[in-house]
Amino acid sequence: MVNISVIGYGTVGKKFVDILAARQQKLQEKNGSRFNVTEIYEIDGAVINTEGIDIAELSKTHAIRDNPDWQAGVRAIDHIAEAAGDIVLEVTPTNPDTGEPALSHILAALNASKDVVSSNKGPFYLEYAKIMALAQEKGRQVRFSSTVGSAIPILAAKETLAGCEIVEIQAILNGTCNFILSRMTSENEPFDLALKEAQELGIAEADPTLDIEGYDAAGKLAILANHLMGFSKSIRDVQVEGITKVTAEAVELAKNKGLLIKQVGIAADDRLEVGLRLVPQSSPLAISGTLNAFMLKTDVAGDYFFIGRGAGGAEAGAGLLSDVIRIVKDACGRL
Amino acid sequence: MVNISVIGYGTVGKKFVDILAARQQKLQEKNGSRFNVTEIYEIDGAVINTEGIDIAELSKTHAIRDNPDWQAGVRAIDHIAEAAGDIVLEVTPTNPDTGEPALSHILAALNASKDVVSSNKGPFYLEYAKIMALAQEKGRQVRFSSTVGSAIPILAAKETLAGCEIVEIQAILNGTCNFILSRMTSENEPFDLALKEAQELGIAEADPTLDIEGYDAAGKLAILANHLMGFSKSIRDVQVEGITKVTAEAVELAKNKGLLIKQVGIAADDRLEVGLRLVPQSSPLAISGTLNAFMLKTDVAGDYFFIGRGAGGAEAGAGLLSDVIRIVKDACGRL
Repeated sequence: MVNISVIGYGTVGKKFVDILAARQQKLQEKNGSRFNVTEIYEIDGAVINTEGIDIAELSKTHAIRDNPDWQAGVRAIDHIAEAAGDIVLEVTPTNPDTGEPALSHILAALNASKDVVSSNKGPFYLEYAKIMALAQEKGRQVRFSSTVGSAIPILAAKETLAGCEIVEIQAILNGTCNFILSRMTSENEPFDLALKEAQELGIAEADPTLDIEGYDAAGKLAILANHLMGFSKSIRDVQVEGITKVTAEAVELAKNKGLLIKQVGIAADDRLEVGLRLVPQSSPLAISGTLNAFMLKTDVAGDYFFIGRGAGGAEAGAGLLSDVIRIVKDACGRL
Repeated sequence: MVNISVIGYGTVGKKFVDILAARQQKLQEKNGSRFNVTEIYEIDGAVINTEGIDIAELSKTHAIRDNPDWQAGVRAIDHIAEAAGDIVLEVTPTNPDTGEPALSHILAALNASKDVVSSNKGPFYLEYAKIMALAQEKGRQVRFSSTVGSAIPILAAKETLAGCEIVEIQAILNGTCNFILSRMTSENEPFDLALKEAQELGIAEADPTLDIEGYDAAGKLAILANHLMGFSKSIRDVQVEGITKVTAEAVELAKNKGLLIKQVGIAADDRLEVGLRLVPQSSPLAISGTLNAFMLKTDVAGDYFFIGRGAGGAEAGAGLLSDVIRIVKDACGRL
């Protein structure tokens, strides 16, 4: 029996529960263990059932507060240590400046000797070293695939490319910026109009600052470099340039030379930078729309590219489930 | 101590030894175990040192028969069961029709309760089910990343995308074919001339049949589909079409419509096919030169693309080492 505590029941938490409910039977057959959700915490209470919440039923309505096992007033931070969950899934809405409340949840879970899976970037671009040190001290695992590129298995390259050294990363890390720059290229639009379109399509937020000023990409880049290249840096160490000053004229000029203006995150030589770069139209990094793309340069075996959707509830949910399954496998029978 | 027996000391075997020698110290620090090579088998004898062969020294010259630990006449198939190696690395030149001698080596290693890593496609596109069943019976692992796309972590998607179901694969699996078709496109050359160039550059072999008739791609496709989609098929179940009938005119016609003629392997709906397809120039599959590219379509989280060098000694060596490290991690302290 693998018990999972879910902290946060927004888009991502719900999608995780949906995907797990749909695959619960198959996972049990493959892994020989039943994957149960024993706690789901919201801000004002929690559904708690140490025998396993009926997630097939719950995922029909997501009406968590009507659940027979709902307990009003229970808070994750107070309850997580005594929860039945062996693995804590942290998917709360989290402040990008402080990483809270996710950071405190993650540390509390590790202190209670639980494994952790999270899609929250903040704790990992702010306190990567602290979290990993505590996990090691407690002999527990922390996995956070979905913080960078959602289900794209890019952080897993630490293991899947373990036979190489990764010596440089170049990546298109922010789907919103890539969408805006793609529209400017394909439609010859000015920045403001492309941003407005992105907002109307729900791709950009009402306040798009974190995306268009490059902070979202910077956070992801710090996580990538720490995990894949052994850096010890935070988002504050990233030199950041936004995309707001890109003009339709510059885009056109580049296009006439077979080039695209892209927001690229680069990790190399102990330096982290998010900025504008000219990318050849023939490069695998020349993706359009909201996709993410990653180039890992290795010491002995050339460059590897990974491309896919970098955002979305189902994508994050699938990435989280991949992490949970990996933790169970790596737990060597402990779970 | 992790002991490795290497069967075969051609390009790939040598590169593996080189990469391991260069990283031996770092691997020991990271994993807490020393990675030793205890046997290296060639067709006419073996270097055997149960304390660990001095691979740093050996990798300077690769003069295996001059090694102080060389024993003439020892054959892998007779000796492997009693070898000191816990993990058997099978990298012999192997017959594509029979999978031999690799297949017999792999079965012998598993029967002796050893883990196996191999870059030999034959055994896996011919006898995937038999090998995996024996591995399960013996409680041992078999890893074969390098059989498809060398170090590109595409077979690892079974684990790294475990949160999704993979419902379709489309892939550019053969670098030689892709090089020839790329040259025909960029230079408006006929097939024969592009093939000749590929041969002069050492990209195509003197007898290019296996590549240009699609059999190399077919073998890789069978392995991919068996491993990632749960198929139980061999290379003989793949519908195969070569690239020899592609004309310069057809390439030109496609190009004028923004399309490229590519040899694509497709696994879907319980069907395996290697054939010619029109790919939009904007698709991540529209890679040029000798690269390989893979598209995995998932049930809930969109499409994922993986691109990189699909051949080469260093690439295969790095992929093999990634597999060895993974086996040690998954052995849960047994190694």
